[in-house]
Amino acid sequence: MRWLKFTASGVTSWGLVENDEVVAIDGDPLGEWQRTSRTYPLGDVKVELPLIPRTFYCVGLNYLKHLKEAADKRGEIPAVPDRPEIGYRAQNALIAHDEDVVIPSFATDKIHYEGELVVVIGKKVKHLTEANAMDCVFGYTIGNDVSERSWQKADRSLWRSKNADTFKPMGPWIETEADLDKMETIVRVNGTETNRFVTGDMIFGVVPFLVELTKYFTLWPGDVIWMGTDGASPDIKHGDVVEIEITGIGKLRNRFVREGQ
Amino acid sequence: MRWLKFTASGVTSWGLVENDEVVAIDGDPLGEWQRTSRTYPLGDVKVELPLIPRTFYCVGLNYLKHLKEAADKRGEIPAVPDRPEIGYRAQNALIAHDEDVVIPSFATDKIHYEGELVVVIGKKVKHLTEANAMDCVFGYTIGNDVSERSWQKADRSLWRSKNADTFKPMGPWIETEADLDKMETIVRVNGTETNRFVTGDMIFGVVPFLVELTKYFTLWPGDVIWMGTDGASPDIKHGDVVEIEITGIGKLRNRFVREGQ
Repeated sequence: MRWLKFTASGVTSWGLVENDEVVAIDGDPLGEWQRTSRTYPLGDVKVELPLIPRTFYCVGLNYLKHLKEAADKRGEIPAVPDRPEIGYRAQNALIAHDEDVVIPSFATDKIHYEGELVVVIGKKVKHLTEANAMDCVFGYTIGNDVSERSWQKADRSLWRSKNADTFKPMGPWIETEADLDKMETIVRVNGTETNRFVTGDMIFGVVPFLVELTKYFTLWPGDVIWMGTDGASPDIKHGDVVEIEITGIGKLRNRFVREGQ
Repeated sequence: MRWLKFTASGVTSWGLVENDEVVAIDGDPLGEWQRTSRTYPLGDVKVELPLIPRTFYCVGLNYLKHLKEAADKRGEIPAVPDRPEIGYRAQNALIAHDEDVVIPSFATDKIHYEGELVVVIGKKVKHLTEANAMDCVFGYTIGNDVSERSWQKADRSLWRSKNADTFKPMGPWIETEADLDKMETIVRVNGTETNRFVTGDMIFGVVPFLVELTKYFTLWPGDVIWMGTDGASPDIKHGDVVEIEITGIGKLRNRFVREGQ
């Protein structure tokens, strides 16, 4: 199933995407719900942010090419993580599919995308095992971990570089049937392909992360885990449109605009 | 006003603490509300977590003694921050006043408290100025930024050390009338004073943080900013009770228990 949060006729609700139509749902996919008789052409609705997570987890370095790229820039030898470690992003930065990423006027030109698989948690769980870890996964969506690299270098943490308002597009919907082993991530800037990688080629996959995190943390319904990215991004300029496709899920597309231009 | 989230007779709601009584409120202090005729003795109600913030901000190093203590341990010269920088904590870790901090069975003995002033945001704001910054502050509460120091040393970020379940007690209530210039923070372990500092003796105060954060971030009602701590903590053991008092606000008290003991 493909769960879309959307607005039509002034009402925001959940819906199921079926072919090119949205069937409105009463209730919440993470709780009780039922189909209604209201349907809308997919192209006519405003796509909303699927959810605001209670806790917003994000893996920093989880693909070898991205790791090497980052280390090369620092003139260092890449240190491959020897265990799953997590970081966080901030809820203020989230925007929906088709909403604009607004680059602050005082940011440098070093604005980069990072296309990421997003795991959406569906159950309250702790102490997961390899055998039962995937039971808590409700579905998948797509994230763009937009970064301002000069701030990333200058700051003690990732506060400005990763969490400025609008720097975390997520969507367009949550797909419950996608097969992690078959996904490919493709990034296009203004329609031209700039990155392509096998989504599952992670240093640590979804299951090891779920097992490790839940040794310490309770995961709650609606929590999200952004799984990291591979490769590198060109500098994204005012007016560029970045589209992140993950096969089997969909396409997350956002225009980048510079404040005051 | 002193806003308490509480449970009595099986119902959770907001209330106003007046002397030793709680007056139940219909609605939400950050929105519409009105007093009811229901009152309860303060000692008889279950104190709940005041709120789960949308974004959970936390200042790392904001007091000179704490900074020096941390640098000394690393054999380094303390580097005093030259501008306000923020970090994040995770919502999963929050617990209420009087709930137990549960130390995982596999944690070391290096369990420390950090008594912190918590700023609770009441309005959706961006681009604050020195002149209007305080208008967005709804009130203050108290936080205990519990830390496992061996994990803090070992990890790439603060994920386990600061955010294990139950490591973020916050409460007991939100005080709207407290005067930042008159506060003193006092920590007691099993009733014996172990720290005392002037709460406002921050390297960067509340106003500079609000101005700097809102250059990049929209603050939302219910967001919290934990303002950092001074001094150092002894190792906290199974059964210890840590009480953090901030004068003019109240006392946040939690027992520490080690899992499996």
